[in-house]
Amino acid sequence: MTTVAAYAAPAAKAPLERTTIERRAVGEFDVLIDIRFAGICHSDIHQARDGWRPGTFPMVPGHEIAGVVSEVGPGVTRFAVGDRVGVGCMVDSCRKCDNCEAGLQQYCVEGPTWTYNAVGKDGEATQGGYSQKIVVDENYVVRVPEGLSLDVAAPLLCAGITTYSPLKHWNAGPGKKVAVVGLGGLGHMGVKIAHALGAEVTVLSQSLRKKDDGLKLGADHYYATSDPQTFEDLKGTFDLILNTVSAPLDFGGFLSLLRTDGTLVNVGLPEEPVRIVLQSLFGDRRSMSSSGIGGIPETQEMLDFCAEHGLGAEIELISASEINDAYERVLASDVRYRFVIDTATI
Amino acid sequence: MTTVAAYAAPAAKAPLERTTIERRAVGEFDVLIDIRFAGICHSDIHQARDGWRPGTFPMVPGHEIAGVVSEVGPGVTRFAVGDRVGVGCMVDSCRKCDNCEAGLQQYCVEGPTWTYNAVGKDGEATQGGYSQKIVVDENYVVRVPEGLSLDVAAPLLCAGITTYSPLKHWNAGPGKKVAVVGLGGLGHMGVKIAHALGAEVTVLSQSLRKKDDGLKLGADHYYATSDPQTFEDLKGTFDLILNTVSAPLDFGGFLSLLRTDGTLVNVGLPEEPVRIVLQSLFGDRRSMSSSGIGGIPETQEMLDFCAEHGLGAEIELISASEINDAYERVLASDVRYRFVIDTATI
Repeated sequence: MTTVAAYAAPAAKAPLERTTIERRAVGEFDVLIDIRFAGICHSDIHQARDGWRPGTFPMVPGHEIAGVVSEVGPGVTRFAVGDRVGVGCMVDSCRKCDNCEAGLQQYCVEGPTWTYNAVGKDGEATQGGYSQKIVVDENYVVRVPEGLSLDVAAPLLCAGITTYSPLKHWNAGPGKKVAVVGLGGLGHMGVKIAHALGAEVTVLSQSLRKKDDGLKLGADHYYATSDPQTFEDLKGTFDLILNTVSAPLDFGGFLSLLRTDGTLVNVGLPEEPVRIVLQSLFGDRRSMSSSGIGGIPETQEMLDFCAEHGLGAEIELISASEINDAYERVLASDVRYRFVIDTATI
Repeated sequence: MTTVAAYAAPAAKAPLERTTIERRAVGEFDVLIDIRFAGICHSDIHQARDGWRPGTFPMVPGHEIAGVVSEVGPGVTRFAVGDRVGVGCMVDSCRKCDNCEAGLQQYCVEGPTWTYNAVGKDGEATQGGYSQKIVVDENYVVRVPEGLSLDVAAPLLCAGITTYSPLKHWNAGPGKKVAVVGLGGLGHMGVKIAHALGAEVTVLSQSLRKKDDGLKLGADHYYATSDPQTFEDLKGTFDLILNTVSAPLDFGGFLSLLRTDGTLVNVGLPEEPVRIVLQSLFGDRRSMSSSGIGGIPETQEMLDFCAEHGLGAEIELISASEINDAYERVLASDVRYRFVIDTATI
């Protein structure tokens, strides 16, 4: 066991504060990672504030983790001390089901072991990346390629894979028109990745406030969804709409922007049930779907792709004492585009 | 112009009664069809009763039409007098858009010309199959293969293609587990076709009342959705769920029966907006989609497939004077499995 400095929410909706947690001893197949950077994901806030379900407290959020290996167990074959690595939303899964065997650990039928706010196979609560060290089985650790700085790599472990996976699955690429709804932490990576994949990219944002940014990030077009004309002009346009917004939307309106056989994929998860008019799916064999992060092999593939194309997250580096303020700014959509905690400041 | 006997709803929600309508003169590319049989589709009732949108009255419903060619225009190349033919939900479309060019006339961007309750290219109201003759452009007429009787073929023009098209599109076949929700006019054809395609077929019906029928039609399994245990037992089972029920369902419950990457396809269209809990799409990259009838080439393919596999609809043949009673029985789910009007009785 190792005592590690961390930032935790002591109870639901309470401000996060400095504390210490215990990390398990490094087991045979474990890697001890000195965390250097941890991204702040909107879902950290959902969970620290019990938005989705009652959480386990004290809770150390953080599933966008980048760091350096400082110790490995005797059975570890894939990593060595000094390797630059990342950990995302999962730290384990059953490893036996069809999905795990297919590398889709995120859809493990028993449910993956989430990086925090879950119970590990050792029966202990898992605790996330707002901390200085973490111990993870090597099968759930990925490599950060040379050329990607650890600070801009950290958000890729959730925001990157969450957008990369559906873009790949639904064949975003040359000749395809892709819309990204929302230009936040997920959305800005969606734009970068869809553009790098060769798709024609349109941002659909509430206002034109971030238009210059969007175009710089790789968007070909930028529309305000607050303008009803947008829904007239773009009717029947897109092969794929990637919705990164976790607030309820006018889904019928967005579905009308799909062309025949188009798909609206949700990667944001509203806290409340949303009403969808089933009728809005009709007429063009439209689909509405969802996607959750990505499997471990695809997470590695995404990091390699991002390194190859020079894609890191746009970040605001903060110290740990700024976490609570950062949460408020995320909720106010006041971040361009991801807060990353310098864990040396914990 | 030809005066033709027909059954029409004189006004929304009024009982249908015998009347006469005018059919246009046979044009250069037109086929005059002596209608022999017309199926009663649930959507006839929706439209005659203004369930979906205000209709045009008097309205002659009917888009499951089987008959024999009795005259052809001088430019007609595909049909000759005496040919056994069918007409489904569409009698024209723009013929120029990407979807029309791809043979997906049902998704014509200008909207196809529906067989009834629409306005034809001549500016006249279209009138459907509850009548003795109809004039249709040859491009929207399909051939009923030898070996398929016209009475059991009529329902294939809507119920057959509406189930065949999504089963093919979402790859129902050997190794796939397909559920058909509802064992009515559409559902019973869905079971027959999915079985003939080689899929493992499960019927999900409100009760076990029609279980013997379902198994005879080709289902491998039959479950009652009124039993909560069904949703426990079948969790994560299906690659494809074909929902033929047009009443609102517990969509979350049905979505939970999908395995990873599974799709719930709706071919029934509720009159009222339905509430879907977006959360129920999450976790396994599930999709919810829709499908509407099929294009003209696929409708021909479906008829050829049905003839090859000996698949006709299970019908109750009625005389025209029984139409209003039949409507009530359809609404009470009291039909096994499709009413077909013998149009000689009009």
